[in-house]
Amino acid sequence: MTATTEKIVQSLQEVLTNEQVTINETVRELHGKDESYHTMKLPDIVVFPSCTEDVSKIMRVSKELNVAVIPFGLGSSLEGSVIPDNGGITIDFSNMNAILDIRAEDFLVTVQPGVTRTQLNKELKKHGLFFSVDPGADATLGGMAATNASGTTSVKYGVMRDQVRDLEVVTADGTVIHTGNKAAKSASGLHLNGLFVGSEGTLGCFTELTLRVYGIPEFTTAARASFPTVKDAVEAVVSILQAGVPIARVELVDESSMRQVNIFSETNYQEQPTLFLEFHGNEAGLQQDVEFTKEIVADHHCEHIEFETDNAERNRLWEARHNLAYAYIHGNPGKKLMVTDVCLPISELAEAVNHAREVVESLDMPGGIVGHVGDGNFHVLLMIDMNDPAELAKADELNEKIVHYALERGGTCTGEHGVGIGKQKYQQQEHGPALLVMQKIKQALDPDHLLNPNKIFHVESEVIEL
Amino acid sequence: MTATTEKIVQSLQEVLTNEQVTINETVRELHGKDESYHTMKLPDIVVFPSCTEDVSKIMRVSKELNVAVIPFGLGSSLEGSVIPDNGGITIDFSNMNAILDIRAEDFLVTVQPGVTRTQLNKELKKHGLFFSVDPGADATLGGMAATNASGTTSVKYGVMRDQVRDLEVVTADGTVIHTGNKAAKSASGLHLNGLFVGSEGTLGCFTELTLRVYGIPEFTTAARASFPTVKDAVEAVVSILQAGVPIARVELVDESSMRQVNIFSETNYQEQPTLFLEFHGNEAGLQQDVEFTKEIVADHHCEHIEFETDNAERNRLWEARHNLAYAYIHGNPGKKLMVTDVCLPISELAEAVNHAREVVESLDMPGGIVGHVGDGNFHVLLMIDMNDPAELAKADELNEKIVHYALERGGTCTGEHGVGIGKQKYQQQEHGPALLVMQKIKQALDPDHLLNPNKIFHVESEVIEL
Repeated sequence: MTATTEKIVQSLQEVLTNEQVTINETVRELHGKDESYHTMKLPDIVVFPSCTEDVSKIMRVSKELNVAVIPFGLGSSLEGSVIPDNGGITIDFSNMNAILDIRAEDFLVTVQPGVTRTQLNKELKKHGLFFSVDPGADATLGGMAATNASGTTSVKYGVMRDQVRDLEVVTADGTVIHTGNKAAKSASGLHLNGLFVGSEGTLGCFTELTLRVYGIPEFTTAARASFPTVKDAVEAVVSILQAGVPIARVELVDESSMRQVNIFSETNYQEQPTLFLEFHGNEAGLQQDVEFTKEIVADHHCEHIEFETDNAERNRLWEARHNLAYAYIHGNPGKKLMVTDVCLPISELAEAVNHAREVVESLDMPGGIVGHVGDGNFHVLLMIDMNDPAELAKADELNEKIVHYALERGGTCTGEHGVGIGKQKYQQQEHGPALLVMQKIKQALDPDHLLNPNKIFHVESEVIEL
Repeated sequence: MTATTEKIVQSLQEVLTNEQVTINETVRELHGKDESYHTMKLPDIVVFPSCTEDVSKIMRVSKELNVAVIPFGLGSSLEGSVIPDNGGITIDFSNMNAILDIRAEDFLVTVQPGVTRTQLNKELKKHGLFFSVDPGADATLGGMAATNASGTTSVKYGVMRDQVRDLEVVTADGTVIHTGNKAAKSASGLHLNGLFVGSEGTLGCFTELTLRVYGIPEFTTAARASFPTVKDAVEAVVSILQAGVPIARVELVDESSMRQVNIFSETNYQEQPTLFLEFHGNEAGLQQDVEFTKEIVADHHCEHIEFETDNAERNRLWEARHNLAYAYIHGNPGKKLMVTDVCLPISELAEAVNHAREVVESLDMPGGIVGHVGDGNFHVLLMIDMNDPAELAKADELNEKIVHYALERGGTCTGEHGVGIGKQKYQQQEHGPALLVMQKIKQALDPDHLLNPNKIFHVESEVIEL
C-alpha cells in the first residue's frame, strides 16, 4: 500500500466503517474487470456504501484527496465502463440493493442502484407489473441506467432512459440532487434525467432510481420464424414494423448462432437465420396481429414459423436467446468475447447485416450475428484468443469496419452497450463538434475529472478553452 | 434607434440581406408577446434567417456585440418563453419552414424549425404517416421542441422529447452541432437530444429537427363519456390505465368548460364532467378495448357514453376540445387567459383536481378545468382582467396554491408549457440543489448569458462559484 492509498483508506474509514473499505487484492481483482475483452486494471480501494449519505461522504473524500471514484454494479459491462483507468476508489453498490417503494397505481418503483432487474421483476410480479428493459444479463438497475441499457423489448417499451422518472445523484462535491420527479411528464428546468442516464459514472453516482413499470400484458405469444437468408429475415421485420404491428420483441439470430443455441441450450431449432418474436396485447388484437405477421413473413420466404403460447416453452425460447453469449463463451474455452453494437436506421439494416456477415466470414474466426432488429441494432459476437495479436488485430479491424459503415449511414457506434473504453475512438467521428459541448458539460460538473475518469471521452483542459 | 442598435443592425446587414433585418415597430410588437398573460416587451431588432448559416452568422454577431438573441416560432407560448427580457435580437424562423426529408421506411422526418405541426401532418398523410404530438395550437416544431410540448396524445405516443432523434443546433459561438443521429436508439456520448429539448432557447437555436413519426393507425374510435363528478371521471381514467387499455387520448373537460365548448363550437354535448377518449389499433383489438372501457366507465358512474367512429364527427369532437382555450377567450372579451399546468403522479390526480376546483370556485372568476388526465396533467383556465390588480393577485394566488399542491406530492410546476417567465419562481422549490447543476450547464454553454436570457432561470455568476 502506498502512502497515498493509506491516507485515502484512513479518510474513508473515518467516515465509513472499517468493513466498508477494503484493499484486499481478490476484491480489487473482482472490480478490475467486467464481461468485456478489455484489459483488467485494479482500483486501489473498494468501498461498499450502504446509503446515500455514505456515497456523499465518499465523494467528499474523493474531492478532498483528489482521488478518482468509479461506480460499480455487477460488472456486466461489455465495454469496460467499470474498469478503473488509473486506480482510485471503486464504489460497489451491492449493499444498496433495496426496493424502496412500489407505487402500483402510478406504475412507478423506487429502487437503490444495486437492485438487479430479475430481483425487481420477482417483486413486481406480485403486483401484476413488470419492468420492461431486458438486456439479457441480470445487471443492476444502477448499471443499466449508467449505460442506457436496452435489449429485446425496447422496440415496444423503449430503452432505459425512457423508464427513468427520477434519479437521486451524488455529484462530484458530495451534493445530493434529484434529476426529475414522479409525474409522467415535465417541462420544468433542463432535462437532467436524460443527461445523467448513459453518463457511465462520469457526472455523478446514482443512489436511487424511480422507474416506470408496466402492467403484465393480458396475453403474450412468442414465435420462431426461420428464413433462407438474413436479408429475408431483416426485410420481414421492416415490413412488420411498417404494417404497424405493435410487436414487443423481434430478435434476429443468424445460422451459426442458432447452432450455438442448439448445442448450449439443448434445443432442436432449425439452424437457419431465425427471428424470435413476441406479441403483447389483448386476446382479440393479438390474434389479429399474429395472423397478419404470418402473412408478412410468408411474403419474405419464411420457411417455418412456430408459435409458443405455453409459458414454459416461451421462457425456454427466450432463455435460449439470452444464453447465446454464454453459448459462444462456453463453446470456445480460453477465448474472450468481443461484441460489436452498432445501430442504424432500419432502412439500412439489411445491407448493414450483410456487410457485417461478409466481414466476419473473411476473418475465419468463430462468430455470429444477433440483433434487436426492430431497433436497427445488431451485434457481431466474435471469440478472440487474447494471446494472439493477429486475432486481436482482426477483431479490431472488424469493429472499425462495422462502426464506420454505421456512422456513414446515420447510425451510432453503440446502440446499448455504452462507450466505456472500447468506443471512445469513434466519439469524434460520431459527434463532431457536439463532442466539445459534451466535454464542456463534463468539465462544468466534474472540474477535477475525478468521476470515472477517461470514460466516454478524455477531457483535456486545453480542449475546453474557446 | 440608439447608437448601439444601429451598430447591431449594420453588423447584421453585413452578414444577411437588408430585408432580413428589421427594426419596424409593428414587427417588433408582434415579437414582443405570445399567447400568455405576460407583459409585452419588445426586441430591438427582428431577423429572418433563411438557412443554418444565417443563424450561425447571427450568433456570431450576438457574441461579438454582446447582444441577446431570442428564438421565435409562432408566438404560441403560454409562459412568455419568447418575450425578450431586455431587448436584443429576436430570430424569427418563419422563413425556415421546409420539410427537408421524409424517410417513410424509417418513420423519420427532417424539418426546419418553422414548419408547423399541421403543415407536417398534411404532408405525412400522403405517406400514411402522422406526427403524434398535438398541443392544440398549430405551433412550430422548433417551438414545440424548445418547450418540450405535449398534449392530447402523449399518454400513448410520448411527449416532444420522445420524438426527437436529432437536432441541428447553433450554439452560442455560432458552431453548428448535431445532438443525435438517425438510429432508433444510442448509448453513445452524453444525451444532448434530451438536454436541448425543453431548453427554451437558453442553450442554442434549433435549425433542423429529425423527428419520429408513426403509421396512421388501422382503426380509430373516439368517445365522449360524461360523469356526475370530476372525481368519478378521473378515477375512471386511473382504472382504464391500470387495466392496461392502450388508450391514445383521454382528456378531461369539466362542467363549466363543457358549457364553453357548446357555446363556441355550437355542439350540444352534456354539460357534465366529460372524458374525451380515443383508441388506436387493429379492428379486433380495438373492439375489445372499447368493450372493456365501457365496463370500466360504468363502474365509475358514467351516465352517458357516445362513440364517434365517423371521421368527420371525430374531428368535430377533437376540434371542440382544442377550441376550448379560444372559447374562453372569445366568451370573455377584454380579459386575458392564464393557464396553470401542473402534472402529478396519477394516484394524486383526483384529489389535485378537486383541490383546484375548490380554489377556482373560491375566486368568483370565469374559469374551468381541462386536462390530459392520462398523464396526470391538468390545466385551470382562468380569464383575468389585466387592469384589475385584485384579479391579477387572485390569479397569482391560484397558480401558487396549485403548484405547491403538486410539488408537495412529487409533481411538477409545468407538465408541458415550459418555464418561460411564469414558472421561474417555482424552480428552486421544484429542483432544489439540482437547479445549481442546471445553472452550471447553462454557464458552460452560454458563458455570456446571451441566449434567451433570464428564461427558465436567472443565471447569476456568484451562484455558479462553489
